[in-house]
Amino acid sequence: MNAEIVGVGTELLLGQIANTNAQTISQALAGIGVDVFFHCAVGDNLQRMTDVIRRARSRSDVVIITGGLGPTPDDITREAVAAATDRQLHRDPALEKEIRAVFERLERAMPEENLKQADLPEDAVAITPRGTAPGFYVDDRECLIIALPGVPWEMNAMLTEDVVPLLTARAGSKVILTRQVLVVGLGESHTHERIADIVEAQTNPTIAFLAGGGLVRVRITAKAASESVALGLVEPVERAVRERLGRSAVPGRGDSLAESVGNMLRDKGMTVAVAESLTGGLVGAELSAVGGSSDFFLGSVACYSTASKRDVLGVDDSILAGPGPVSEEAAGALAAGAARLFGASLGLAATGVAGPAEQDRVPVGTVYVGACLDGKTEVRLVRGYGDRTNIRAIAVTATLDLGRRLVQNEGEG
Amino acid sequence: MNAEIVGVGTELLLGQIANTNAQTISQALAGIGVDVFFHCAVGDNLQRMTDVIRRARSRSDVVIITGGLGPTPDDITREAVAAATDRQLHRDPALEKEIRAVFERLERAMPEENLKQADLPEDAVAITPRGTAPGFYVDDRECLIIALPGVPWEMNAMLTEDVVPLLTARAGSKVILTRQVLVVGLGESHTHERIADIVEAQTNPTIAFLAGGGLVRVRITAKAASESVALGLVEPVERAVRERLGRSAVPGRGDSLAESVGNMLRDKGMTVAVAESLTGGLVGAELSAVGGSSDFFLGSVACYSTASKRDVLGVDDSILAGPGPVSEEAAGALAAGAARLFGASLGLAATGVAGPAEQDRVPVGTVYVGACLDGKTEVRLVRGYGDRTNIRAIAVTATLDLGRRLVQNEGEG
Repeated sequence: MNAEIVGVGTELLLGQIANTNAQTISQALAGIGVDVFFHCAVGDNLQRMTDVIRRARSRSDVVIITGGLGPTPDDITREAVAAATDRQLHRDPALEKEIRAVFERLERAMPEENLKQADLPEDAVAITPRGTAPGFYVDDRECLIIALPGVPWEMNAMLTEDVVPLLTARAGSKVILTRQVLVVGLGESHTHERIADIVEAQTNPTIAFLAGGGLVRVRITAKAASESVALGLVEPVERAVRERLGRSAVPGRGDSLAESVGNMLRDKGMTVAVAESLTGGLVGAELSAVGGSSDFFLGSVACYSTASKRDVLGVDDSILAGPGPVSEEAAGALAAGAARLFGASLGLAATGVAGPAEQDRVPVGTVYVGACLDGKTEVRLVRGYGDRTNIRAIAVTATLDLGRRLVQNEGEG
Repeated sequence: MNAEIVGVGTELLLGQIANTNAQTISQALAGIGVDVFFHCAVGDNLQRMTDVIRRARSRSDVVIITGGLGPTPDDITREAVAAATDRQLHRDPALEKEIRAVFERLERAMPEENLKQADLPEDAVAITPRGTAPGFYVDDRECLIIALPGVPWEMNAMLTEDVVPLLTARAGSKVILTRQVLVVGLGESHTHERIADIVEAQTNPTIAFLAGGGLVRVRITAKAASESVALGLVEPVERAVRERLGRSAVPGRGDSLAESVGNMLRDKGMTVAVAESLTGGLVGAELSAVGGSSDFFLGSVACYSTASKRDVLGVDDSILAGPGPVSEEAAGALAAGAARLFGASLGLAATGVAGPAEQDRVPVGTVYVGACLDGKTEVRLVRGYGDRTNIRAIAVTATLDLGRRLVQNEGEG
């Protein structure tokens, strides 16, 4: 069974949002062994939308459409699916009732135009609205066409509670299983060089590389009839890869570096606090995005102004006036200050120049990260590159990775 | 001139990354009047990639491909473009020299396999590598095919410095101009109801709606021969829309709520500091993502643990033991504490339960936001919905919006 994901909305084509729904759906389908061969995005134009749905139907077993199910006149996915499958739209009375009930529960008056959301192509099956927009699916010849709302949380609830069970029942049970090895401190080509012979020897699992934000992801993906068979294929390869990459490979199963660091800290009963200058809160946001982060994350201070580095985190005036707020000394003092302020076992810090302009003659891309574990402090100079966003992302990775290495050494020292 | 954007990489189809390159390129093309009609994504498969490029070439004037230009064996965009345009690949000597020079500058040894990045389809023009991967473009019959690396900052440098000038020279100079009105506090359908007659009366500019993360974006888009003509079309409509939406429309030109708030603060010579519980640093990250944020953003504390709310931000034990850390009282005390700690004119705070589980019998989605301006404190209860990520996004919006309203009132009071 192979699938195609169609994102609908002129806002995608104008670049006003990224198509994160395609990503979420792809992840879910990989988990149940449905191959995704194509993503498409098309605007709120009936002719082009109908063409895209027709082509998708002709080359894919499942087509999942997101967006265009709202109440406003530019929402025309219902019409396009009807046109592409030569069906009429009709108003579904049960759905009309359901939509009215949603507004009653929210204690809000229902605008009349919302009733168009109760229109469905003939033979379509409605999917209960989570917000106010219902989804639906329809079997058209050899193809299952599914339409979901574009609002991510509404889409996601229908995906996990309705679509995945529906596809699992129809698809049989092949499994696609991916393990990621996060690599920090080697570039993409050096990572590949170290494991090139392993990559070439493999067909199942396959091994692919993804670089960005200061780290490389080595993705080992197996296809098998069951999860345990897939695991049996992936695990020996993962072990071999980790052995070759040594300290550059982040231990554990985390999908992000923050999750891996969090898992290590939780296992050791340790806690972490952060002082952030150029990252402005991103390290804390990453750590607190991990489920159960209150086990290990105590807090973070975005000390953007120089005064706050002194007043909130206790960095010495002599450091701020001498080496300056972007320096080895400041990174170390900030890390120690974060640990002290929150009473954490591990203090982390990042200070640097994200750009666009240099700052006190320190060039754009200069980043110092610091970590302080039980009173022992380490500092590192990192050269960020690219734009402001990329330099901040590199700084987040370097900060978390320095902490990771300190905690890892301690366990082994 | 119309364009199609093709993202290459199995990591897109497995959902391991979102196709943010398509978003970035779409924004850039909108700015120079090039319509984007389709996005596609396809995996590292020569046959399917060739098919997608052939179809794109047949229906679009410009095809921009991102990804698959790296040095590893799964990077096959060069081969697919050659196959789709019936060309041979040859090694470009100037490019080979350039790639060797990049590694010399980085003082790193060059893996031999990187030389395949010097291979180009016949007649193709190379685009200088920013990292290590060169891009290229080739004129094939009526279509201009452009291939850029997948790493966002490398792609973006080539896009703005090479591709945009190339397309501007070829396209003539139509302009697509979009103004956004950010709306907080009305839902999507109520926003539409208030301005439905304006929407229906328009063909140029067009008006569309985009909801998510606790706000609605009303996008007013005009097409014209020059920027000044486009502005003349957009501005009267924007004024009419703002008048209907009243206080719910965020003033100013900011692309994000953080940017709008930042601009208001800068204009009034005010500063802001934040205390963040469930948002874990996201409000600070948003504020510091705005260019020039050091003018108004002093800092933020992610006070994830209850102890840090007391010790770092000075919330009274009586509040933490009585109403609790998720309460009106705590939100107000946190906002006042943030303003005091950093010496800011405006203190903001968010505390609540992001889930997945309830906390001390407070249900998931309960969020209190607070703002304290020159000693005057306001607090609001917000009901978040959806998943953990959506609840955090709603909390960020509500926090910034409460601050926005206080600052706006003060200017008028």
